[in-house]
Amino acid sequence: MHDLIIVGGGPAGYRAAELAAGENLKTLLFEERRLGGVCLNEGCIPSKALLFSAKLYDYAKGGAASYGVTCNSAAIDYAAAVRHKDKAVDLLVGSIETSLTKKGVEIIRERAAIQGRDKGVFVVNSHRAPSLLLCSGATPTLPPIAGIESAMTNREILALTEIPETLAIVGGGAAGLEMASLFNSVGCKVTVYEMLDRIAGTFDREISGMLQGICERRGIVFHLNAKVNGISELNADKVLVSIGRKPSTEGLGLENINVHTERGAIVTDDFMKTSQPGVYAAGDVNGKSMLAHTAYREAEVAINNICGKKDMMDYSAIPSVIYTNPEAAGIGETLESAIAKGIEARETKLPMGYSGRYLAENEGMDGICKLVWDRNRLVGAHMLGNPCSEVISTLSAVMHTKMGAEQIKKIVFPHPTVAEIVKEAVYHA
Amino acid sequence: MHDLIIVGGGPAGYRAAELAAGENLKTLLFEERRLGGVCLNEGCIPSKALLFSAKLYDYAKGGAASYGVTCNSAAIDYAAAVRHKDKAVDLLVGSIETSLTKKGVEIIRERAAIQGRDKGVFVVNSHRAPSLLLCSGATPTLPPIAGIESAMTNREILALTEIPETLAIVGGGAAGLEMASLFNSVGCKVTVYEMLDRIAGTFDREISGMLQGICERRGIVFHLNAKVNGISELNADKVLVSIGRKPSTEGLGLENINVHTERGAIVTDDFMKTSQPGVYAAGDVNGKSMLAHTAYREAEVAINNICGKKDMMDYSAIPSVIYTNPEAAGIGETLESAIAKGIEARETKLPMGYSGRYLAENEGMDGICKLVWDRNRLVGAHMLGNPCSEVISTLSAVMHTKMGAEQIKKIVFPHPTVAEIVKEAVYHA
Repeated sequence: MHDLIIVGGGPAGYRAAELAAGENLKTLLFEERRLGGVCLNEGCIPSKALLFSAKLYDYAKGGAASYGVTCNSAAIDYAAAVRHKDKAVDLLVGSIETSLTKKGVEIIRERAAIQGRDKGVFVVNSHRAPSLLLCSGATPTLPPIAGIESAMTNREILALTEIPETLAIVGGGAAGLEMASLFNSVGCKVTVYEMLDRIAGTFDREISGMLQGICERRGIVFHLNAKVNGISELNADKVLVSIGRKPSTEGLGLENINVHTERGAIVTDDFMKTSQPGVYAAGDVNGKSMLAHTAYREAEVAINNICGKKDMMDYSAIPSVIYTNPEAAGIGETLESAIAKGIEARETKLPMGYSGRYLAENEGMDGICKLVWDRNRLVGAHMLGNPCSEVISTLSAVMHTKMGAEQIKKIVFPHPTVAEIVKEAVYHA
Repeated sequence: MHDLIIVGGGPAGYRAAELAAGENLKTLLFEERRLGGVCLNEGCIPSKALLFSAKLYDYAKGGAASYGVTCNSAAIDYAAAVRHKDKAVDLLVGSIETSLTKKGVEIIRERAAIQGRDKGVFVVNSHRAPSLLLCSGATPTLPPIAGIESAMTNREILALTEIPETLAIVGGGAAGLEMASLFNSVGCKVTVYEMLDRIAGTFDREISGMLQGICERRGIVFHLNAKVNGISELNADKVLVSIGRKPSTEGLGLENINVHTERGAIVTDDFMKTSQPGVYAAGDVNGKSMLAHTAYREAEVAINNICGKKDMMDYSAIPSVIYTNPEAAGIGETLESAIAKGIEARETKLPMGYSGRYLAENEGMDGICKLVWDRNRLVGAHMLGNPCSEVISTLSAVMHTKMGAEQIKKIVFPHPTVAEIVKEAVYHA
């Protein structure tokens, strides 16, 4: 018998397995596909690897000329970019496997089905443990429209080895925009169809508008308030459907142990407990945030609680990033979401060009840093401009400790960095 | 009469002037050269602008090929890179002038000399104020060796518009290494002479060694334990002397108001007060840290104290960065410095490749993240690998709040970022 059975080897599952083994729990992990889940194999990592190739190609095609660097015959070998991406992914998948094995986690390459509870222990594919952690992730939501079977999801688009001439993207959220940015950069004609009146979902509305403008100037066409009835009407060589993801619980056997779900998602509390004592869930399967770093943190909370350590989730300081070129990043409340919650919030903002380094490295680009305040306390921050994906983690640290403006002013940011914009924006608040 | 006279318009002086004016102090600023000081005109900003051109050229010359991007005829127009640099500097200098003027700071374009104290107020070039803030900066240290008058300092090397064939650099500290990285990238044969047995001064010794190795593989030649007796013996087209800077106090008239100095530096306490009541000093002139961001913070502390607000310097969480390609960054104690202070410190380390994004964007590069612990408290962090200049500010925030390991683990870092390495390294501690 094991101490813990984990279902799913994505970010939540492999993180949990590492930690559980570190706590000397005899841990069994089920994963039917490759370790690393969607994030590592068909999401975050492969997209970022390809986006980096695209960014270098943007510079080579002409972006570097403002800095005195020219390439008369810039070219992208997309198949080579894909090989580089695959190499990075393989290395990371391999290192997860090595790490888990080294720590003594038993990995079973099967689809897991919960059979029930027997004498106080859970039975999964005939294996038994008193604790169960469900990390089965999510799958793409596919609308019931004509020709949907011919459309790509994140999986297929990241496996392409040739650049299509035209690409239609249904869904203008983070994932859709990243693919739009990537394929636009490498020379494909990209059209984005978004059902809302704005791109980038819950991101700050002003930043979403600025990002759309930048993308349009680069040649991406957007159709907002768009209703798509069929794939063939989009008249594109390839169509990506990226309208969201839904928790994967089918066939998991939740009904055999009475785990409560709501709209397909396993219901969890702030300790990652489900309705069934001894059963925890972390990551996309609880439908809360659908982000890998949320999954990591939820996994940590779950394992700490399984081990009797005090820990709980705080969903108020979770950053999110769109890795377009330029990047957008946000954390906490937008002015809009804060006001909707009844907070008497105010917003302050500063062009990114107040950072000398940003100015020196982002010729001709419009960037912005926006802060949302509840009186003197920072409750949100939103940025557009490279490399805000790396800068936003400073705000994760700041918001985690619930610092006020006066305390943030005392942090010494290295000069010159783009990160300094945070302190500058606080001084301008 | 003014409320405050500030001597020097570099990072300490212009920051102080902005804040003082914001506090409604009638403020007079003396600056005989361009606003922005050495940092903006002849240091941090121009070097980073040129280093960015160099980094893009590194990619164009072949670095991008690993990512599928090729440029058969990559070229750098160094004069164009310099023009881009000058444009960024001019813009920033202009925006400081605009900001100060808008806030009502009076700027006098003269060299300031303190005449004395008269009826409780200080007299500088016949202007009077009860408070005085000295921010006169520092000048390059020049060794008394043969031919020193033919050598360049930071000022002259950043004004070059052509790439010399060979460049000798005396001094392997941060500034010397950045120029070595820049000129090596743009095709110059660079030799560095360092009197110590290691480069990068007080940086972590292992990182300093790794950085030297990377630079050597790129063709930079290092002579350690080197004694240079004359400039001509170095047999280089151009010679840069970069062995440090000394506080600028000559002609300032300190003797007229009895401000205490030690080895040429104005002595200040943690409130930026000098030995003379009413006289404060901030920035390089106090010889404490010689970094622009320290100067900013010291200026804030000085103005807060002048305005009767409680504030004091904390020199324990000041980051420093070397903007070579790859970058190195550090904050707080190294294992070596901690042990020297009697701390029972231990060190933990992790290759940067544990970050998926680092791995995807830094093909073939060795990077490292090292943490120094006093029991459970983080007292230092040191990194090698891009873009650690931006990542280190997260550690500024973390160390500012004196977080322990368990609290750092609860910060949600966005995935995938290089910044995640911090959390990963804490988990591996």
